[in-house]
Amino acid sequence: MKTIYAALALSIASVSFSQKTLEKVEPAFWWKGMKNPELQILVYGKNIANNDISLSDGIQIKDLQKVENPNYVFITVNTNEINVPRFTINIKKAKKNLGSYVYELKQREAGSANRESFTSKDVMYLIMPDRFANGDEKNDSRPELTEKADRKLPNGRHGGDLKGIINNLDYIQDLGATAVWLTPVNEDNEKVYSYHGYAQTDLYKIDARYGTNEEYRTLSRELNKRNMKLVMDYVTNHWGTSHWMIKDLPTKDWIHWFGDGDEGFKRSNYKTTTQFDTNASDIDKKYALDGWFDKTMPDINQKNPLVLKYLTQNAIWWIEYAELGGFRVDTYPYNDKEAMAKWAKAITDEYPKFNIVGETWLYTAGQISAWQKNSKTGEAAGYNSYLPSVMDFMLFADMPKALKEKESWNTGMIKIYDSFTSDFLYPDINNVLVFFENHDTERWNEIFNADPKAYKMALTMISTVRGIPQIYYGSEIGMRGNKEKGGDADIRRDFPGGWKSDQQNAFNPSEQTSEQKEFFQFTKKLLNWRKGKDVIHSGKTKNYVPQNNVFTYFRYNWDESVMVIINNNEKDQTLDLKRFEESLKGFSRGKDVISEKEIAIQNNIIVPAKTPLIIELKK
Amino acid sequence: MKTIYAALALSIASVSFSQKTLEKVEPAFWWKGMKNPELQILVYGKNIANNDISLSDGIQIKDLQKVENPNYVFITVNTNEINVPRFTINIKKAKKNLGSYVYELKQREAGSANRESFTSKDVMYLIMPDRFANGDEKNDSRPELTEKADRKLPNGRHGGDLKGIINNLDYIQDLGATAVWLTPVNEDNEKVYSYHGYAQTDLYKIDARYGTNEEYRTLSRELNKRNMKLVMDYVTNHWGTSHWMIKDLPTKDWIHWFGDGDEGFKRSNYKTTTQFDTNASDIDKKYALDGWFDKTMPDINQKNPLVLKYLTQNAIWWIEYAELGGFRVDTYPYNDKEAMAKWAKAITDEYPKFNIVGETWLYTAGQISAWQKNSKTGEAAGYNSYLPSVMDFMLFADMPKALKEKESWNTGMIKIYDSFTSDFLYPDINNVLVFFENHDTERWNEIFNADPKAYKMALTMISTVRGIPQIYYGSEIGMRGNKEKGGDADIRRDFPGGWKSDQQNAFNPSEQTSEQKEFFQFTKKLLNWRKGKDVIHSGKTKNYVPQNNVFTYFRYNWDESVMVIINNNEKDQTLDLKRFEESLKGFSRGKDVISEKEIAIQNNIIVPAKTPLIIELKK
Repeated sequence: MKTIYAALALSIASVSFSQKTLEKVEPAFWWKGMKNPELQILVYGKNIANNDISLSDGIQIKDLQKVENPNYVFITVNTNEINVPRFTINIKKAKKNLGSYVYELKQREAGSANRESFTSKDVMYLIMPDRFANGDEKNDSRPELTEKADRKLPNGRHGGDLKGIINNLDYIQDLGATAVWLTPVNEDNEKVYSYHGYAQTDLYKIDARYGTNEEYRTLSRELNKRNMKLVMDYVTNHWGTSHWMIKDLPTKDWIHWFGDGDEGFKRSNYKTTTQFDTNASDIDKKYALDGWFDKTMPDINQKNPLVLKYLTQNAIWWIEYAELGGFRVDTYPYNDKEAMAKWAKAITDEYPKFNIVGETWLYTAGQISAWQKNSKTGEAAGYNSYLPSVMDFMLFADMPKALKEKESWNTGMIKIYDSFTSDFLYPDINNVLVFFENHDTERWNEIFNADPKAYKMALTMISTVRGIPQIYYGSEIGMRGNKEKGGDADIRRDFPGGWKSDQQNAFNPSEQTSEQKEFFQFTKKLLNWRKGKDVIHSGKTKNYVPQNNVFTYFRYNWDESVMVIINNNEKDQTLDLKRFEESLKGFSRGKDVISEKEIAIQNNIIVPAKTPLIIELKK
Repeated sequence: MKTIYAALALSIASVSFSQKTLEKVEPAFWWKGMKNPELQILVYGKNIANNDISLSDGIQIKDLQKVENPNYVFITVNTNEINVPRFTINIKKAKKNLGSYVYELKQREAGSANRESFTSKDVMYLIMPDRFANGDEKNDSRPELTEKADRKLPNGRHGGDLKGIINNLDYIQDLGATAVWLTPVNEDNEKVYSYHGYAQTDLYKIDARYGTNEEYRTLSRELNKRNMKLVMDYVTNHWGTSHWMIKDLPTKDWIHWFGDGDEGFKRSNYKTTTQFDTNASDIDKKYALDGWFDKTMPDINQKNPLVLKYLTQNAIWWIEYAELGGFRVDTYPYNDKEAMAKWAKAITDEYPKFNIVGETWLYTAGQISAWQKNSKTGEAAGYNSYLPSVMDFMLFADMPKALKEKESWNTGMIKIYDSFTSDFLYPDINNVLVFFENHDTERWNEIFNADPKAYKMALTMISTVRGIPQIYYGSEIGMRGNKEKGGDADIRRDFPGGWKSDQQNAFNPSEQTSEQKEFFQFTKKLLNWRKGKDVIHSGKTKNYVPQNNVFTYFRYNWDESVMVIINNNEKDQTLDLKRFEESLKGFSRGKDVISEKEIAIQNNIIVPAKTPLIIELKK
């Protein structure tokens, strides 16, 4: 590792890393008719800043910014003033032509600005592409990329790819998911442990082991055809040490340094509560925000306006190019929060309906809600994030505890109820991601020993409470994974059937074991039912304080009412319906959504032990 | 109990409970020159509403309100229009005089409206008067009050009184407390279990077993002479079943009923998070707010304007009469919150500096802060409480856990640090009560086995962090009390020396055991030091993320800096001071506040295991 840091330090000393006069132009192309007509073009090449740079067709350079490293220039143009579809960037020295680049301004797709994005109408399916399905064995290893596929290595590349996902879209659609969140698929050319993709080495290029940019767009278009959405996992906080710009830094402050050489790296203290803490010490804040998430992940300085512009344009480029349906943003509170507010605002100014959910891994509603746009809690800290959506990590943390622990006045289902009593702190409670696991956590089915009852209760909850449910690939067939014992690899096992050599293809329901089938059929039934239910997507909620470890709540609007009962008691429970009079008025019967059996709404309802019940109420 | 409920129900049926035509006038007198000139006088007597009521001296009755029960009338006058010090209320029927009452409008004490109240400059000492000191044995039992003293009964009356407190003011002052909060001392004439005083039976009268109204005022004046404050424990949520108005209800809706007879009583579900929960069911809210706190405590309906007026005037009457320095308000979130906002606003409009702290027994900063005046969190729920101060029950809950549990990334001292990271949610974080125990909780010295080290760490924390420290009588001499085993009685043991027959008088430092002395001397040293420290009262705070179970923070202003180190580690810890550079800049030495020894501020500091260190920094 030492050499890398030495290289990083050296790269600043105007040693020319690049060999060609014109090596890269980013973004490689852009579009006419964006709301913000300003475009900043990064031009990269050997000592490029010491040359004359001009544009064809009489196009004016509004700003030409040189930085510490002469291999970079940043050219700003106003696309409204450019009336040709293509123009040329010319690099000259003493009138000698050293290079040129034909820059294209494409036409936008109709309706692009007003594109729909994921909402509480959706169910989000989270996939780790390397571990889902290998649709193209030819791209498993690539000569230009260091790490080669080796399925035997738990932390190695296994060969899953975009083609594998495209091949299984019927499965995902059939399951009832309507949005797909892939962990990062941009190039991650770290030597080892690159499959997770969070140490990106090229922000404009899909990792060739996953496929191509075109294939990524194809996946998105295939999803859109099915009225589904592709959600990109965007990483603003850090890049990989092998990122070409990290190896030849434009400015020293492109990333956060703590000192020279190995001293430059300091690990984050992961205390992101310092962001709103008026009493946090500078050093704690510095370690939280500027400390590196990991040694292979240099911490990006979003405060540098060039960095912020780069991240903003890159994000918009992907939305426009790949016709995206949303962002999930990694390690949100580790970033500079003022810069991120500008980033989120720039994106949502450009695409007013575009949804962005930040990974707000905090445990109190007060802290999480402060990250949501226009929140009063953010206002209390003098902050507006402009971030539309946040993740309900409080519910995530409470759910397994609540379902496991012995019931008391403040344990058991009451804990889940309690977590909802702070919903008033969120300005947009329906735009909150609800989940009981993800790619960084113990698998639910591990915690509950693959007990379908526990899974059904959890899935019922996230699918019927406010917000956007998110599920994690494989749990719908009961997959387990023990993070404590097996590390991240164990919670990111290959989906059975994703590889030709697999013994079983669990993507095919007829090949599923009876255990897998029980998980799968319940998920499919519930999520498909949810698709058409406005009452769940945007209805009001009425909660009843849990009694005997049974939590009952209603979702309702003018047209419909749904009663949900989660019996986490070890015994069957008979509920006296009188207590729910205010929600049951006018209803005499109901339909059990899962069994489709009719239920009489009279004196009481019996709910079996450890069982959820979803009842559509009828007059 | 059945008979009481039957009587309550009957009393509404216009059965005249009162025997005399003019039995009571409340408030018994009032003052000229209040900001709000309106005064509502309750006049009570047999069928009084069926008579003619008039005032002498041509004074106009602005409003005369009759209610369901003819034994009550409510007369409103404008005190600005009354130019005599006394006037007469005359009750006549067919010109026959049936009774009269001379009503006095007193002059206010100079500066009354602008009176000072408890702030973060103070340390509040909480006393249960029945259990502190028996200064007057003659009032232990009273013929007119049902329950007689019996010190052998854990839940009986023990004889402590106001005289006992007055006798020991030197002790309290010497200890360093500057405000005294007494649990309620108004008359509580319940048959048994009346010593706690929360089932009040007369809101205008000190319980004769504690003393008289005059004695209560004397206590207040004695405190004021010492520049100390008397804080009244005000109860708006419930009165006792034996309250004279409860036995002859003015209106049926004076209290909350759930049905007839025994059905009328329903216990609260104690889920006060329903107050801000936008999704709470009506029935849960009803049980939370209208359910009775206990069977002997009918739940008062603050929504009734007559009730609210009664509570407001009674509160102001006590402030003005007894020259109070603040209120602590019982079971705050159990009350109707809109009515309470009016109540708190009326009082603070009348006395702008008057402080009121609500018993906000909730566990998240988001919920607690929502009860503080002008909070953004309250605003998120569409509410402004007008309540100046709240109790930090989150810190209270976290402190014993943090000090007991094994340290990890989210346990140990980090838990306390974490609780402070949500301070941004409070609009006035210095006006928050900080405490590690009170009369309703396990005693700290029980949890920690009377370990002086644990006590010293806890006391250091509440005395040096933001807010108003509150301590509980007896813990300063190491008193224990096990609520789980011994119930409330055990956490409310008699202070040794409060009774003539006591073997030991711990009020006298020379009689204290060496164990008691260690607690007492530390408390005295710390609290007396705190008295003059603006830097603690109103300074800024700088927190450092705990490492190795050691929490370090600084309080600072332009003039002073104090470094506080709480080493909760089992081993001595050597702290590298470099980490605290931003707070230590310019300081080369310091003084240990407790030992008064000089400390060099150079490379590092060694802090013994399980020990707090408070260092005044010097240039």
